[in-house]
Amino acid sequence: MNLKIAVLSGDGIGPEVILQAKKALYAIGEVYNHEFVFEDALMGAIAIDKTGNPLPEQTLNLCLNTDAVLFGAIGDPKYDNNPNAKVRPEQGLLKLRKELGLFANIRPIKPYKALLDASPLKREIIEGADFTIFRELTGGAYFGEKKLNEAGTQASDLCEYSEEEITRITHLAFKAAQNRRKKVTMVDKANVLETSRLWRKVVKTVSENYPDVALDFLFVDNAAMQIILNPRQFDVILTENLFGDILSDEASVITGSIGLLASASLGGKNALFEPIHGSYPQAKGKNIANPIASILSAAMLLEHFGLFKEANKVYEAVEKAIEYQVVTTDLKSDSKFGTNEVGEFVSNFI
Amino acid sequence: MNLKIAVLSGDGIGPEVILQAKKALYAIGEVYNHEFVFEDALMGAIAIDKTGNPLPEQTLNLCLNTDAVLFGAIGDPKYDNNPNAKVRPEQGLLKLRKELGLFANIRPIKPYKALLDASPLKREIIEGADFTIFRELTGGAYFGEKKLNEAGTQASDLCEYSEEEITRITHLAFKAAQNRRKKVTMVDKANVLETSRLWRKVVKTVSENYPDVALDFLFVDNAAMQIILNPRQFDVILTENLFGDILSDEASVITGSIGLLASASLGGKNALFEPIHGSYPQAKGKNIANPIASILSAAMLLEHFGLFKEANKVYEAVEKAIEYQVVTTDLKSDSKFGTNEVGEFVSNFI
Ligand SMILES: CC(C)[C@H](C(=O)O)[C@@H](O)C(=O)O
Ligand SMILES: CC(C)[C@H](C(=O)O)[C@@H](O)C(=O)O
Repeated sequence: MNLKIAVLSGDGIGPEVILQAKKALYAIGEVYNHEFVFEDALMGAIAIDKTGNPLPEQTLNLCLNTDAVLFGAIGDPKYDNNPNAKVRPEQGLLKLRKELGLFANIRPIKPYKALLDASPLKREIIEGADFTIFRELTGGAYFGEKKLNEAGTQASDLCEYSEEEITRITHLAFKAAQNRRKKVTMVDKANVLETSRLWRKVVKTVSENYPDVALDFLFVDNAAMQIILNPRQFDVILTENLFGDILSDEASVITGSIGLLASASLGGKNALFEPIHGSYPQAKGKNIANPIASILSAAMLLEHFGLFKEANKVYEAVEKAIEYQVVTTDLKSDSKFGTNEVGEFVSNFI
Repeated sequence: MNLKIAVLSGDGIGPEVILQAKKALYAIGEVYNHEFVFEDALMGAIAIDKTGNPLPEQTLNLCLNTDAVLFGAIGDPKYDNNPNAKVRPEQGLLKLRKELGLFANIRPIKPYKALLDASPLKREIIEGADFTIFRELTGGAYFGEKKLNEAGTQASDLCEYSEEEITRITHLAFKAAQNRRKKVTMVDKANVLETSRLWRKVVKTVSENYPDVALDFLFVDNAAMQIILNPRQFDVILTENLFGDILSDEASVITGSIGLLASASLGGKNALFEPIHGSYPQAKGKNIANPIASILSAAMLLEHFGLFKEANKVYEAVEKAIEYQVVTTDLKSDSKFGTNEVGEFVSNFI
């Protein structure tokens, strides 16, 4: 197979972890005879620094004209604490999601056997947990109208959803559940929010097309608790943009490190694959960032193109690295291995 | 001291747990020579059933004319899954918070020594954790304009905040931190939301009045993770309404059961004390609901009126109950004690 892949390494640890993902893909290409052509482009704070725009026209065009996008991370503290910044790295990512129509962000959560003791949660709580979060990615408060009055004393964010936006991701979630343990848990705040009530209504209607899949509902406050109390109860979690953002970061604790979690963003003109961790600026350039989330994002990319054998090889390599404790210090505090060594191990294993 | 207390037991397990809180207050009154006069009133689903209104005029008037409100829980599944319900129990609670001006909801999180193994988190993670969440309670998406188009295909919720709303709770949070470990962590999503950026700006300005208190910021997704990874890092968490709702339920896992967590809602014409758990309808009438959260809410009420000796007596009684394992099955699955027995033990100890 020939694949043209846009690579947006972004900010902070983005470039160093994405490099390891590329190495894994090169190795797969060699062994299985595929050609992966990478094209790098700017996004995030680095794009602002170089072009004034967090998502330069050129980057967007490239993403629209490749088979897939591999994305690292964006964000820089110099913007976070500056409420007056006119341009922010995050705008680049949000615009890209919107322009590519990436309405479904899929985040699988499953602890590795060899890491069952690495979690802050007890082994008996997480053992056997295996669920996937379907987070709506192009709607809600992320994209609704934002206002700040002239005096700078009143602000608002509008959270909007339409039946159509809810319907399309709901179908994806139910289809995924059909290939899993056949259960969808819708997470919302329907006792307070109008948008949540619309979600509940639409999801119920769509669910009638999937009589083999069970549907239940949880309020988001309760869900945030249940994910920790009893993560095994979940199969597919379906939720709106902001709740999905919060719950998926929270759920990362089950696996022992957010540095292990990959995600796929699908639904539109292209597909994008990214680690769920952020730019982690404090770690930049220190060879301590965990590259596994990025490497697993590459594996999700392979799966997306039907390259299941190849994806499994990557999964196997990552499992071996973890089994042999070739991991970064987030997983083993006295580890002597860094970003490069973990990436090296994985691509050599392939 | 003479105190007139409005008692809104509400729905589900509300009445049975509030009964135990009243018993504790009666016992305190006798031992320490105070007169607590309770007046019961309707709120929630039960108020809808009896009057059509989740917060009858009479209840509101009573609350406005008493020294404090003791509140149980509201909510009924028959409303949750009915997106067309015109009247909902939650509206009563939200209206009450608004009308009484209860802008600050304070939720202390601290595990009991005897329960360090009852949490899904490892003992070494939670040992020594001790923080308080200051949740803004009368603003944000809970109270902003809600819309549903006529076709029922488009919905929206508006999240609004003003400088004034942020300022007043920020002062309370910083004052609390001055009497604690002198650290405030503001939780927001300032990389995406305009309201969060306003929060960040206002909180920074207010913080200049408290040079002895350290201030830091966390994005809500990261905070949801940090609360589980390393809860000891927190002293006072300050956040907006919906984030506070999610994070405080999540944080309950640190203590082993949400049935242990009390809250005080302050700031306005009156003060309200309530367990943070909900109406838990499945448990209603079964004598299995944990009354400790309600009993501790009564202790927070005593503290609010400067009755510290009395409050400490209640805390001591609860600690004894836990130490002697006179607890409900949420804390000890083979316990033979129920709601009544735990409440009895506490009031006898007083
Ligand atoms: C960087 C930020 C805008 C982003 C989000 O909130 O969507 C990130 O937290 C994520 O989850 O991908
Ligand atoms: C019942 C519900 C409206 C309420 C809320 O979301 O505020 C509850 O979850 C709480 O935390 O007190």
